[in-house]
Amino acid sequence: MGNITLITGGQRSGKSTYAERLALERSERPVYLATATIGDEEMAERVRRHRERRGPQWINLEEPIKLSLLDLKGHTVLVDCMTLWATNIFFDQKEDTDSALTALKNEFDLLTGKKADFIFVTNEIGMSGISPNAMARKFTDLLGFFNQYVAARADEVVLMISGIPVKIK
Amino acid sequence: MGNITLITGGQRSGKSTYAERLALERSERPVYLATATIGDEEMAERVRRHRERRGPQWINLEEPIKLSLLDLKGHTVLVDCMTLWATNIFFDQKEDTDSALTALKNEFDLLTGKKADFIFVTNEIGMSGISPNAMARKFTDLLGFFNQYVAARADEVVLMISGIPVKIK
Amino acid sequence: MGNITLITGGQRSGKSTYAERLALERSERPVYLATATIGDEEMAERVRRHRERRGPQWINLEEPIKLSLLDLKGHTVLVDCMTLWATNIFFDQKEDTDSALTALKNEFDLLTGKKADFIFVTNEIGMSGISPNAMARKFTDLLGFFNQYVAARADEVVLMISGIPVKIK
Repeated sequence: MGNITLITGGQRSGKSTYAERLALERSERPVYLATATIGDEEMAERVRRHRERRGPQWINLEEPIKLSLLDLKGHTVLVDCMTLWATNIFFDQKEDTDSALTALKNEFDLLTGKKADFIFVTNEIGMSGISPNAMARKFTDLLGFFNQYVAARADEVVLMISGIPVKIK
Repeated sequence: MGNITLITGGQRSGKSTYAERLALERSERPVYLATATIGDEEMAERVRRHRERRGPQWINLEEPIKLSLLDLKGHTVLVDCMTLWATNIFFDQKEDTDSALTALKNEFDLLTGKKADFIFVTNEIGMSGISPNAMARKFTDLLGFFNQYVAARADEVVLMISGIPVKIK
Repeated sequence: MGNITLITGGQRSGKSTYAERLALERSERPVYLATATIGDEEMAERVRRHRERRGPQWINLEEPIKLSLLDLKGHTVLVDCMTLWATNIFFDQKEDTDSALTALKNEFDLLTGKKADFIFVTNEIGMSGISPNAMARKFTDLLGFFNQYVAARADEVVLMISGIPVKIK
């Protein structure tokens, strides 16, 4: 089974920057596994900025749902991010929290069953008041339960606060 | 005066699961004190899920406001949660932050004045932008001030992040 | 160059109270540098409450944007808060994230280039779902990047959770 590091935190807390530095410390040729599906101009701009920041030493892969189908054995793999992965599976499963959670756990188990060094980036999204939007509440449930699942299996968990990594496991 | 443990964190961060495990470690017959008033189907579903997870060894009590009226001396008591307790008192006090905070502090002092082992679950709700909704801002004030009040009196405070307990006091 | 302490956390997490105590421990006559522009009754009420809590030993200054123009050499200076400072510059720069970030970093460098003891208060605002409001997303980007910039330069960073200071750097 693979080695698992989880980097969590809020939006713009420096999660990706820190995760990229970690991957480059561990490998000269890390894999960047993007889960984003580029739907609009704003997202395209964010993706472009992230790519600019990364150097040419990265192997760039994109897969929104079936991450376990990729052959990643022996690599250091940065999965950026779990939030978009969960979003894609949530909509793929017709916004049903239970079946989306089952699908995510299955994919995660298949993926991390391979001997590789995984770094996952995710988001803390539950530290505001409860959303008046039912779909947002369902997604908050889904990602929260998935974060717990991954953190329980992780060898190391880091919380990012204002760019400062705080090791919590 | 009672022993006080405070478990705080975001939605779906594993607060209740952790608090339940803690209560069972401390007592063979802990009290589960629910503050929820079941107003709709979604809430009923959440309560049902929580009950299923807990075993038959629990003594189940429900009280939305006057928690101090219950006879809890000598018990390990899990109060789940302060957020709903504060919500109930907020509406009981006509959405006035100051009088709701006074009422909460009074009830808390009466409750924890009894010799028992208390575990309180609460929420961090202020880590988003300021809400455009005035009532939401008032409730964020109320719960934040109440969380500070309880944390200052707690013997132990734990922050849950993705199911990982982080001891902060 | 000045000494820099950063206090971050959610709304009503006790940031200002803690920062004020810290300033009074470090100086008998600290400077309170308010960045608020009082636009409505609710804000005026918040400012009034904060002033009441502080004692007569404070030197009170107000400046929404050009903080570096103040002569603060040798003082202990509490900047409360970075969130409103960033808000003021964001609107001053026509809601352009990039130019607002550049302006903020410039002002910050000029300000902290002076030999003084700085305590900055800021907010964690990115731990909810992504806002449906484009301006809110842009501001979340701005404050998040600015928080990272300041935290990287800070000698000490403290995260407030329910009034409990958690030293993270």
